[in-house]
Formats: sequence, structure tokens, C-alpha cells
Amino acid sequence: MTGMALLGAGRMGQVHAAAIQAAGARLAVIYDPVTPAAEALAARIGAKVAPTAADAMADAQADAVVIATSSDTHVDLVIEAVRTGKPVLCEKPLASSLADARRCIATIGEAAARKVFLGFNRRFDRGHASLRAAVHGGQIGRLEQLIITSRDPFPPPLAYVPRSGGLFRDMMIHDFDMARAILRQEFVSVTAHGSSIIDPEIGRLGDIDNASVTMLAADGAIVTILNARRCAFGFDQRIEAFGSAGMVLSDNPRQSGLKRFTADHPGTPAPILEFFMERYGDSYAAEIRLFLECVRDGREMPVNARDGLMAAYLAEAATASCKQGRTIHLTGPDQEFGDV
Amino acid sequence: MTGMALLGAGRMGQVHAAAIQAAGARLAVIYDPVTPAAEALAARIGAKVAPTAADAMADAQADAVVIATSSDTHVDLVIEAVRTGKPVLCEKPLASSLADARRCIATIGEAAARKVFLGFNRRFDRGHASLRAAVHGGQIGRLEQLIITSRDPFPPPLAYVPRSGGLFRDMMIHDFDMARAILRQEFVSVTAHGSSIIDPEIGRLGDIDNASVTMLAADGAIVTILNARRCAFGFDQRIEAFGSAGMVLSDNPRQSGLKRFTADHPGTPAPILEFFMERYGDSYAAEIRLFLECVRDGREMPVNARDGLMAAYLAEAATASCKQGRTIHLTGPDQEFGDV
Amino acid sequence: MTGMALLGAGRMGQVHAAAIQAAGARLAVIYDPVTPAAEALAARIGAKVAPTAADAMADAQADAVVIATSSDTHVDLVIEAVRTGKPVLCEKPLASSLADARRCIATIGEAAARKVFLGFNRRFDRGHASLRAAVHGGQIGRLEQLIITSRDPFPPPLAYVPRSGGLFRDMMIHDFDMARAILRQEFVSVTAHGSSIIDPEIGRLGDIDNASVTMLAADGAIVTILNARRCAFGFDQRIEAFGSAGMVLSDNPRQSGLKRFTADHPGTPAPILEFFMERYGDSYAAEIRLFLECVRDGREMPVNARDGLMAAYLAEAATASCKQGRTIHLTGPDQEFGDV
Amino acid sequence: MTGMALLGAGRMGQVHAAAIQAAGARLAVIYDPVTPAAEALAARIGAKVAPTAADAMADAQADAVVIATSSDTHVDLVIEAVRTGKPVLCEKPLASSLADARRCIATIGEAAARKVFLGFNRRFDRGHASLRAAVHGGQIGRLEQLIITSRDPFPPPLAYVPRSGGLFRDMMIHDFDMARAILRQEFVSVTAHGSSIIDPEIGRLGDIDNASVTMLAADGAIVTILNARRCAFGFDQRIEAFGSAGMVLSDNPRQSGLKRFTADHPGTPAPILEFFMERYGDSYAAEIRLFLECVRDGREMPVNARDGLMAAYLAEAATASCKQGRTIHLTGPDQEFGDV
Repeated sequence: MTGMALLGAGRMGQVHAAAIQAAGARLAVIYDPVTPAAEALAARIGAKVAPTAADAMADAQADAVVIATSSDTHVDLVIEAVRTGKPVLCEKPLASSLADARRCIATIGEAAARKVFLGFNRRFDRGHASLRAAVHGGQIGRLEQLIITSRDPFPPPLAYVPRSGGLFRDMMIHDFDMARAILRQEFVSVTAHGSSIIDPEIGRLGDIDNASVTMLAADGAIVTILNARRCAFGFDQRIEAFGSAGMVLSDNPRQSGLKRFTADHPGTPAPILEFFMERYGDSYAAEIRLFLECVRDGREMPVNARDGLMAAYLAEAATASCKQGRTIHLTGPDQEFGDV
Repeated sequence: MTGMALLGAGRMGQVHAAAIQAAGARLAVIYDPVTPAAEALAARIGAKVAPTAADAMADAQADAVVIATSSDTHVDLVIEAVRTGKPVLCEKPLASSLADARRCIATIGEAAARKVFLGFNRRFDRGHASLRAAVHGGQIGRLEQLIITSRDPFPPPLAYVPRSGGLFRDMMIHDFDMARAILRQEFVSVTAHGSSIIDPEIGRLGDIDNASVTMLAADGAIVTILNARRCAFGFDQRIEAFGSAGMVLSDNPRQSGLKRFTADHPGTPAPILEFFMERYGDSYAAEIRLFLECVRDGREMPVNARDGLMAAYLAEAATASCKQGRTIHLTGPDQEFGDV
Repeated sequence: MTGMALLGAGRMGQVHAAAIQAAGARLAVIYDPVTPAAEALAARIGAKVAPTAADAMADAQADAVVIATSSDTHVDLVIEAVRTGKPVLCEKPLASSLADARRCIATIGEAAARKVFLGFNRRFDRGHASLRAAVHGGQIGRLEQLIITSRDPFPPPLAYVPRSGGLFRDMMIHDFDMARAILRQEFVSVTAHGSSIIDPEIGRLGDIDNASVTMLAADGAIVTILNARRCAFGFDQRIEAFGSAGMVLSDNPRQSGLKRFTADHPGTPAPILEFFMERYGDSYAAEIRLFLECVRDGREMPVNARDGLMAAYLAEAATASCKQGRTIHLTGPDQEFGDV
Repeated sequence: MTGMALLGAGRMGQVHAAAIQAAGARLAVIYDPVTPAAEALAARIGAKVAPTAADAMADAQADAVVIATSSDTHVDLVIEAVRTGKPVLCEKPLASSLADARRCIATIGEAAARKVFLGFNRRFDRGHASLRAAVHGGQIGRLEQLIITSRDPFPPPLAYVPRSGGLFRDMMIHDFDMARAILRQEFVSVTAHGSSIIDPEIGRLGDIDNASVTMLAADGAIVTILNARRCAFGFDQRIEAFGSAGMVLSDNPRQSGLKRFTADHPGTPAPILEFFMERYGDSYAAEIRLFLECVRDGREMPVNARDGLMAAYLAEAATASCKQGRTIHLTGPDQEFGDV
């Protein structure tokens, strides 16, 4: 049974702790800068607490490292973890800025970057993964249009907005990765539009709460991403892939198969799955299982730090496009965008 | 029983002939430049044939005029029909170019323009009309995102492409009108992307076969229109309106309520309604009924030549945006776009 | 254009008048015992009025006869119409009692009975007809279970109950015919259960308002029919056919493709089609078209007076089973059931 | 953390072992007559192995007992477990015959019977439980019709048929319990029909593979249960509850929200959940959690040995009805049915 060191015992740390157990691995040691948080989680699981991240990574019972601390610490911990030579899974995002993401790859090198699993867990959602398999398996022929819709149930606290990096980096980052995972090619242009129609206060803080992004692939495929920070009917997460031979749609799964038929409800289905732990909960365990398989087989990670860099790059380009009111032609992750 | 003069006995003329009968009006007289076409239709219906359009419009039994000739004749016939003082319904588009549409309005004047019914029949589709009523009735609160998807079953003949005016003017014109009808405000910007991914030959002819358009409304609402010239599963016509209090979706209706459950088909529904006469057939009769009601009540037409001008203007702007690779800021239907 | 004589200008007469026109035939002459009713309909359509049924049937412009008078007159009019030698379509039921149905067949003879079209219009509903085609085409292999659900939006007026013949003869008669049309074999037993749970007054009048019938076919297939006289969400009309290779389901069609997503309505579809004219309206025109085709080709009618007799026989057997609390083993339409 | 003794380490023992862990309890000790089976499971979980059932039940770390041995041992183990005074959960069925079920209740007494949790796990399926809550909460008014459909993906091995007790006792037993749980009243009559249409060999072994049962409740509500031993599209498990104010439907949940749109698949959803562990897996953990709650609160078990007796009684009555070709009027679980 593989032993794991877990860095971070906050919300995402707890998600990964549960996923590690569900995947049949052993959570050996936990570190969190807030020691009582580490202790509480360790007590519940039956794990050790390490006084520093370095101690946790170095622990003899830790065969692999999972990083689930705050986003701004990811890069330094990834670099440190890579140096231990142990396999590393880092929760998304790779970095809190594109500059930091570049520094991470530059420091560890391209080869090592491809060995760091980056936790874009939505890739492992059953519906989204089935859609991806259908597209890659040729079920819809050549992909012509991809539409990704991500709407959160409610906006983040206003206090969070200024340090979030903005909607494109904070929320749409998942969708940039998903678009890349489905298309398996890079994009030639990004055009972003946004507005703060939900809450003008978000606009005053320099951010947006509704956004639409169009990306063109080299072969002419058109990607549309729609985000909203609030959705009255829950966590709206859909993907539509349209191609020469048809379409696949990953629709919102439902809490159950119940349908209600009354005068006012002539066939109302059960609510969609609630926020991310209900919708994407299983995908974290699937992610850990895939990570362990790749470790066992010595494989390159199918979603890795390089993907983290590319998602950060697209988020940066979208931010620039939206601010500058123009289409950005993409040249690669070293591209500079002026003032964003 | 209102008597109608029908100009045009081709495909759209026949559609309107059937709609006139279904709406309980009388088709009195028919004109078509190809006299045998007029004669064949007149014989089937029991109507007269007029030797010229002017004769048809002037016929004593014609209380109103329906124009369903080729697009390039619409403007002159509208002008002529308006001069007779009889109520006019003109099949879309108002004109085959923005310049011509401007000329039409300039000639007949704004007041008369609002009395010419323009046949954007999709407004009267049962699903789309219910969506519009739900949005205007406040069911989804404030509209934040509107997504219109229009995909034809198969591309037009290549020979048609050069004289079609291009995808934005020929196909997306319906969607521009629908967006205006749903939002009830004008737009501040248009950004269009397109590619000829279905058939490179279409690209060589200077047109596109896949397109995505983003329009911003003054209040921050974001409209996305997706078009494709080919769709393997039929005539894909959907609208999604998302707002502060929820979403309404006008999905493709089905040929029946049949569902098939086998190992390979675990719940496959009946096919969606086929090409436009099956999907939108009823909407033509609804359009004629509404036209007759407005005539009877002396009302302004709810969709009129002014709307035809505005749709042509958006199509022109989208064409310019796509060709010039930039967002177009909209100033009004007199705006010039340079080389398009 | 085939000319038709229509007997009956009441509700069903008007339905058939519209269907005759929609099918492209000509309604030549109308008879109704209430002459003003005939005159009103005739004026609307542009038809003649005949002073007697015999005159209508004998009219030189009547190539065929449609009977849509009250149920208790059907048998005598069918006999009279058959004697004219003209093709006959009779609205269901064939007779208001099994004895009368037997008398009809005995009088006209088996051969003529197969030439009288009996108006079980639901056979021509698009969804139900597709289901039947799928079953007969082998899509679900060997049929093992058939479940027919028919629920009316609201119960009939209490005054109608005593002269209705009871639920099995008045309402379930459609479902008995549908079961026969789908199975294409006769049944070996009928077991019926019923209760008056909607309105005890219906029970006091000797009838029921909820019923369940089980019929066994010779090959072991099991048919279940469920009826209710009231349904809060509308006219619930579904058929489920289950077989060795899968299942087909004819579900209630919807008024449109609209779906609503709000906190309370997380995906509520449009209401189902309302009462029978909205749900089954098209099927009357399809029925007339099929009748005219069979007349033109000199074919036996695919649903005929013999089918009317068999449906009446099953309704009688179900009535007996429910009253006597026992399974009835079926021997043929001459079978007597004692006191029912 | 409550410690559990588990009797039985076969398929159902393993299901309960997983459910115990998922429910956050501790599996302390395992017994199985096949010692290596007990040892293998114990090793995987980290539990002790007891040499006899009595030792397992008496174990100091066992606060409660879960019985998951073969059906014919349930009664004696329940009696023995009740004598230890520890809370007991017994996998369904309570007994392999009605006589044995009666003996169980007679031996332990009515009061104790209500303290033995009987594992009718489908009550805890999310969809079915929501339907039950909707019915009991008054959402559909007064219940008038209940239709339960249970179809297995494939028939049992022929060798199993003779010792299965027959379809009503082996398969429909779940549905009898579900009907009681939803109606919360006993039934006045049972009428059963069956046939061996899937495999005549099953008929030659004296059993059936397709069945339909109708039960009447005292208030006139009509219950229909449909079973089939084979279903081409998977594990078809649906419940429809129809009442004075509407209907609720617990439909088959899907493997994901994926929908496929191609020429042949115009909207095909993902397959339904596979056999019982995928469909009902979560319900076993929910069952254990509820059991533990009732233990903690000293409550009567919401589904108990008395319910096990009543389900066995209805299965016996249905078997008699089917064999004897008559409606059985129900008088209570002591009723004798003659030769069944």
C-alpha cells in the first residue's frame, strides 16, 4: 500500500485525504502551517503530523507527495518535492501567476514537469471523461465546435475577489485545461469578453462575473467558454462537442432518477448535483488512482505541470484580451501581453 | 375573409400559400416572373394569376400583399407595395445588402417601415416564442447570457455560396433578429470568428461554414451565436437564455415521444424535427395570423422592415469583424465598415 | 378529389370534417338529426345539407361515407351505408353493446365487416404508430410485456356515467384495440380490477374510475392496461412494449421543447399535449388519408368492424371479470358472461 | 465507533463489510462456515475471525450483529442473535419459507421482531427514498396507482431455479416490501400471472420468468408489479406512484450525464446503472447508517422482521394465485393457501 505525505489540511487537503483513502492508498503523514488543522485531520485518519513540509516529504513512510496548500505556495513546494525524487501530485493551479508557473518549469525542467501530476480533477469526472473518450475515439468525427459552460452556484465573498487573480485565472482555468485536453492541440487566438452584471461591486474591484471566451484552433475548430459566478439552479457544468459526424454533450448529472409530474411540474427532474464536492467528489479519488497507476508504471503524468503552465498562459491571454478589447494571437507561454 | 396577393410561387411562395390557407385567409391572386410556376400554384389553390407584380398588388380582391420572390427583388417590391397603401408582409431578408436595406427605409420612411411585416418566422416557433415570453415575463430575472445555436443539416450547393452574401448575411441573419427580439435592446459590439472546416472549397469561395459571434449589450449581457452549415443529426436549433433567477432552454422538438431502449440504445429518443418546413412549418401560419390581426387592429407590425434593417446591419458588422479580425463597436445602421 | 358524405355534425363530426379537409378530400354533403348543426358546419365548409342520412349517403357527389353520429346509431347506419356499396368509415365504437356489435357483423357479413374502416384513431398517433412499427419490425425481439397507460385529465360529468357503458366499454376500449393491434394475436384470459377512488359517487352509480386489467396472450406475453379518469398533469397516454431484445416507450409528447431551470424547477419541460384534440388531432387526418388510400387501392381496411367487435368483446369480458372478481378465460366473441 | 460482528463472508458478507466501513463503523469480527472466506475478508479489513457464529456474536468488541449468511440459516441466526441482546441487522429474506418466517416471529416475539433490522436495502436507494418521501409528504395527494417494474439484466443459472423458491419469493420479494413501504397499509387481494417466455426450461423446472401481480388496498388503491428475469438494456428498476394531485416517477439513474447525437443516436443518454451493486451499492451503506442511528437512539427498526414476514406472506399468496389461477383474498400472515 503506497504511503502518502499530504501537505495542506484545509478544505482541499481534506478532499485529498478522503480521496487517498478511497483510492486504497495510505495517508502516512500530514503537514499544515496551521498545526492544529494538521493534528485534527491526522487524528481522524490515523496519520502522523510533520513539523515542516520538508519533514513530511522526507518521511520514510511517504512514497509520494500530495500538495494541497494555498495556491501561492505551490511552486516552491513542487520544486522542493521534485528534489526529493518522490512522485508529486499538486492541486491546481500550478502557480498563482504566469510568471511563477514559468519559473517552476524553468527550475525543474521540462522532463520533470511532465512527471508532476497536476490536479485538474474535472478531467476525471465520469461524464466529462466519457465525452473526451467519445471525441478522441472518433464518435463525432472531426471536432468543429466546443462549448464549455461553467457556472458557480453563488459568487465568492467580495473580500476574495482582489486576491483571486480574476475570473479567468481563478475560475476559467479549469475550462482552459479542459479545452486543451479535448482538442489535443494548442490555440492560435483568444478573444475574451466579460462584464460585472451580477454584482457591480465586483466590477469596482476590477473583476468581472460573467465571461465569454472564443479560442480558435489551428485547424479552424472554434472553442467557446461561458462562465458565470452565480447560477440559480446550482452548479451548471456542461460540455458540448460538435463535429462532422455528430455531437456529444456532457450534461449536468442529477441527484437521483426522480421526476415529478403535477400541474405546475409536468415532469420536473431531481435537482442537479450540488457544488463541486457532490459533482466532482468522485473525480478526486479517480485522480489519485490514476496518479498511483502512473507512479507504479513509471509513466509520464497524463496531466502535468506543463499543462498547468499552458492553462495559466491561456488565462493570462484571456485577461489581456478582455482588458485590452482585442483578439490576442497566441505565440507560446513566453508571450508577454503588456499591462494586464 | 381577407384576400391576399402573393408575389412569388417558388419554394417560399408555396410555403406562404399553405400558411395563408392554414391561417384561414384567401389566396386571391398570384404573380411569379416564371408564369408556369404561378399557374401551377394557382391551379392547385384555386387562385387567379396576374401578369405583373403591379397587377397582383392592384387586384381588387387583394386586401394585402405577401412578397416571397427572390431576395434581390424584395426592396423594390416592398417600395411598390407600400405605395399601393395595402398591408405588406415581406419574407426575410428585407434586402440582399445593407445598402439596399437602408435605401428601402429611406424611401418608404420610418413610419411606413414599421407597418411592413418582415417574415422572421422563427420568432413564432412555439418553443422559441415560449422562451421569449418567459424571458420577458421575468421568469429568469435579468438576462445575463444568451446562446443561440443554429446548425443546418447539410451545406448549400457550392454554386449558391458566391451569391449567398456569406454565412452571416444568409444564415445567421435569423439569429441576429432572434437576439434582438429576446434582448429588446441594441448591442454595443460584435466580434465574429469563422472557419471553413466542413469544406475547404467554401473557404476558397471566400465564405465560412462554421461561425461564432459574441455581442455585448449595453447592460453587460453577453450574446453568443453559433452556426454550422452541416449537422449530422439534423436541424439543430436551440436557444439558451440564462439570467439572475435561472435559465430557459428552447430545445429541439422531437418527431414523437418514442424512446428506444436496447443494449446499444439505452433510451434513444425519436429524431429531432427535420429541416425547416418540419421544424418551423407551423410558425409560417402563426406569422400570417399575427399579420392579419395587426392589419385588422391597425397596429404597428411587431417585426417589421426596421428590424430587417437592424438584422442586416448586424450581419454586415459581423462580416466585417470576421474579415478584419477585430471587435466592431456598433454605432448604428448608418455605420460604414470599410472593405467587407 | 374524393367527395365525402358526413353523418353527424357534433363534436366528432366537426373533428372528421377538419380531418377530411386536412387529408385533401372534399366534404360534399352533411347530415345531422339536429338540422341547424348540419347547416352551421356546412356553411363553414361550403358543403350541402341532406335532409336524411339516406339522402346524404345516396348523394351523387359522395364517393364515401363517414359516420360520426352518436354511438347508439352506429350499427344501423353502418348496415345502411354498406348497402349503398360505398366505402364506409365509422367512428369508434362500432356499437354501444357487444350484442349490437355482433348483430352488425352478422348482418353485413364477415367480408363486408373487413371493408368498414373503424375509427380507432390512436393507432395513427405518430408516437404510438412508431412503437407499433418498432415492435412489428423486430426491434425489441419477442414481445414479453405490454403496458398501456391511459389517464384522462378529468372525470366525465356524473350525468354521463350511467349511460357510458362503464369505464371498460367507454374509455378502455381504445386500449383493448391498441393491445390487439400491437400483439396481432388474440388473448386467452382477462382479469380486471377497479375502484372508485377518485369520486365515490361514481361508485354509487355502479362504475369505477381507476382500473387495471391484465391479459395473457397464448404465447405467454402479459398485457397490463391502467386507466384513471383524472390526471392532475393532463392527458397521460403512454405505451411501453418490452421484449427479449429491449423496450420501446411511446411517451407523452410535449407542447414544445422548452425547459425551465430555476431553484424550484431544475429542468422542468413544457407541459404535455392537452386533451385528445391536441394529442390525437393529427391522427384523425392520418386516419382519413389511410382510409382514402385503401379505397383507392381496393384494400381491406387495416382496422375494421371486426376489430370493433373484438374490442367490444374484451371490454365486455373485463366488465364481467371486475364485477365477478375472477379471471375470465376467453373463448371468442360469442362468449356469454352471465350478469354484467 | 460501534464494533460489528459479521456473519457471512460471501458476496453479501462482502457487500456489508464495505457498507460497515463506509458508514464509519468498525468491523470487529467475522464468521463464515467456510473459514478461508472469513480469513480472506478479515485480512483485507483488519478484523478478527471467529470459529463459530456464537463466538462472533459473543465477541466483546461486537456491539451489534450483521447476518449475511445463506438465506436458509437466517431464522436460526436471528433467534440466536436476539438472545445475545445485541442489535441485529439481517440481510433479506428473513426466511426461506413463510413457515420459517412465522416460526422466527413466534420464537422471538412481536416486540423483539420490531427490533431486528431487515435488510430491504432498496428502501434506501436515493431515487426510491425520494419517491417515498414525496408520496408520504403529500406531493401527489392520495395514492391511486402504484406501478413497480423490476427487471434483471439476465436470468439466474438454471441450477439455481429449483432452490430459489420461485420468482415471487426470490425476486419480487423486494417489490412486495416496497409496495408496503410506500402504501403503509396492508392489501386485501393479490392476483398473480406469470409465464416462462424467456426460457421454456425455466417453465419445465416449475418456475416462471415474467410476472405481473395486481394488489388491491383497502382504500381502492391499485398496485401493479412487473418482473422479468432478463432485460436487454440492463437492470430496469422503476417505480411510478400516481395520485389525485400528480405523479412521481423513480426512473433508472444513468452512468453519467453524457448524451450522444448522431444520425443513428439522436440524443442517446449514457447507459443506466448496471446490476445491483452499481445501482443499489450506496443503499447498503445508508442502511447500515440508519441501523446505527436506531441503535444509538434505542428506536424500533423502521424495516424489521415483521416486514420480512409480511413480504414472505405476499410472496406466498402470489405464488398460490399464479398456480391456482385465481385472486387470493388476504386475511393475514397465518393464512394457508393449500398446495403451492
